[in-house]
Amino acid sequence: MFGEQLLFFEGSEKKAEVLIDNSKLSLLNDISDEFWAQLVNCCNAQILSSIRNDVCKAFLLSESSLFVWDDRFLILTCGETVTVKSVEFFIEQVGMDKIEHVIYQRKNEYFAQAQLSSFGDDIRLLSEHMSGNACRFGELDGHHNYVFCQQNDYKADDNDKTYELLAYQICEQASKKLTSPGLSTLDIRQFLTLQDLLPNFVFDDFVFDPYGYSVNAICGKDYLTIHITPQQGSSYVSFESSINLIVMAPKLLSILKPASFDLLSFNEQNFAELTSEYISAEYVNSAKIKHTLDNGYFVCFANYILPAQQYSKPTLLDISGENNAL
Amino acid sequence: MFGEQLLFFEGSEKKAEVLIDNSKLSLLNDISDEFWAQLVNCCNAQILSSIRNDVCKAFLLSESSLFVWDDRFLILTCGETVTVKSVEFFIEQVGMDKIEHVIYQRKNEYFAQAQLSSFGDDIRLLSEHMSGNACRFGELDGHHNYVFCQQNDYKADDNDKTYELLAYQICEQASKKLTSPGLSTLDIRQFLTLQDLLPNFVFDDFVFDPYGYSVNAICGKDYLTIHITPQQGSSYVSFESSINLIVMAPKLLSILKPASFDLLSFNEQNFAELTSEYISAEYVNSAKIKHTLDNGYFVCFANYILPAQQYSKPTLLDISGENNAL
Repeated sequence: MFGEQLLFFEGSEKKAEVLIDNSKLSLLNDISDEFWAQLVNCCNAQILSSIRNDVCKAFLLSESSLFVWDDRFLILTCGETVTVKSVEFFIEQVGMDKIEHVIYQRKNEYFAQAQLSSFGDDIRLLSEHMSGNACRFGELDGHHNYVFCQQNDYKADDNDKTYELLAYQICEQASKKLTSPGLSTLDIRQFLTLQDLLPNFVFDDFVFDPYGYSVNAICGKDYLTIHITPQQGSSYVSFESSINLIVMAPKLLSILKPASFDLLSFNEQNFAELTSEYISAEYVNSAKIKHTLDNGYFVCFANYILPAQQYSKPTLLDISGENNAL
Repeated sequence: MFGEQLLFFEGSEKKAEVLIDNSKLSLLNDISDEFWAQLVNCCNAQILSSIRNDVCKAFLLSESSLFVWDDRFLILTCGETVTVKSVEFFIEQVGMDKIEHVIYQRKNEYFAQAQLSSFGDDIRLLSEHMSGNACRFGELDGHHNYVFCQQNDYKADDNDKTYELLAYQICEQASKKLTSPGLSTLDIRQFLTLQDLLPNFVFDDFVFDPYGYSVNAICGKDYLTIHITPQQGSSYVSFESSINLIVMAPKLLSILKPASFDLLSFNEQNFAELTSEYISAEYVNSAKIKHTLDNGYFVCFANYILPAQQYSKPTLLDISGENNAL
């Protein structure tokens, strides 16, 4: 983009997963929706809508998503939210004795000065309630994710798999489509071919004003959530799912054609083989990291870029003073 | 680095160049060293030492460098400095009527939350004294540089060339060498082969405690300055010069072996040809941008990465609370 005004939104997510001792507490039976609304408010987000089935409730938030299963909940928030404040609320209301494990993840931000807390602040708050370790997946000067996990006896189930696909600099055509006025949720579902990709899932989605899109999708205990910041100059599309997003990547990348993307997985033992098989050789792998956390989760992270083909123009900035992009 | 404590320093530079109407003011004859000391103090830095010849004074600072020629000065500062406060001091002391042109540049930071100002804050301050335009070279999610230039009749001299080479993630061997205890300035000059690269230059350099290195070098009106943040996990080495650093890049890259680097040039018309000739094909070009600013400077920016060869470990973080890396 050159000559246009940037409207910036910090799409980078913070994510907490809290696992419960199901013998002491049932999140689906013992906890009201009002409680979840309060929990979400604690980090400066609101519930927009929800869907549910027998084993999962999915709340669409003003800033991302909350998923609740009987023995765990997962909250993802973006923008200027403080996700750990929701975790703190849960701990204070429910008690650490009913909590089996806490894991917290935060992506690097692009307007860190606008954030209400740093990752350091966040883990200092969590550390008031638990001991833990933290590490960084990805180089400081590239895309990276900080991960904090509670240090206790909890050991992850090998079958508890999570996949993230984080796409940056989507192609001009995708950005134009996703920022065009009057788009409906159905338009965006069709553009992303969501109903073909996830034929048995129930969807709940929202188009933000002037643009931006969030969707939650559930099927049994499986979930997928997508959050789109579509504007050129700062575009970002995040996918998180229990479904294998590496296998789904060729389709998603062919629609969005991002200049760069990250893959992150928890407990995918075949990450190296799957990325070799499914990621097109036109993308160059600029970082790859693997590590088993103390809690047993096997984490893999990889960043890919498209080599630059031709010289582009710089991004002209609006310096009127109304712009949070500076 | 895995298992060690990170000691983080924000090496990313902010840089201002101020050009003077030499018929009204001579910076070498009319301005005292005491004035420059005051100017440097305004941005929270101090002068450590200086060298000079007939046409140039070079001050080594606690945070980078100040170069003064008769008709211009150039200040580069890193860490938690506010470079534009030095520019504001100069404007207030000398008056805008003696200033021909101001250009200000700021690299993206990795701990923006620790900075005392954002680029937006900086250009709002400059805009109190002049009108101007700003743009961003490089993608938001990659290495990038913001450039502000005053909007007036000034037109850059085609022969006024500047080169920057910004190296990230230097190899383990270079990081170990540059963080080893008891290093002298001569040790580092030899490691970088500076006296071979710049045989006729006078040097002024400093080794910081516990590590870090700055050098100014001048020869007639030519200058080169290097600032090294050597610690693994957040290493960064910046070179800026009037000498062609693209031609010098093969030697410098062979010593530091960075996993990623940027080249930025002002008024190098042959940037594309030179980078094709001098940058090894083992590096992949992930971004390239060119643009002529309103003031006539032809600016080129390119980022290069080494493809990841094997899986590495994440960076373990010290969460004791004493660490500004979080």
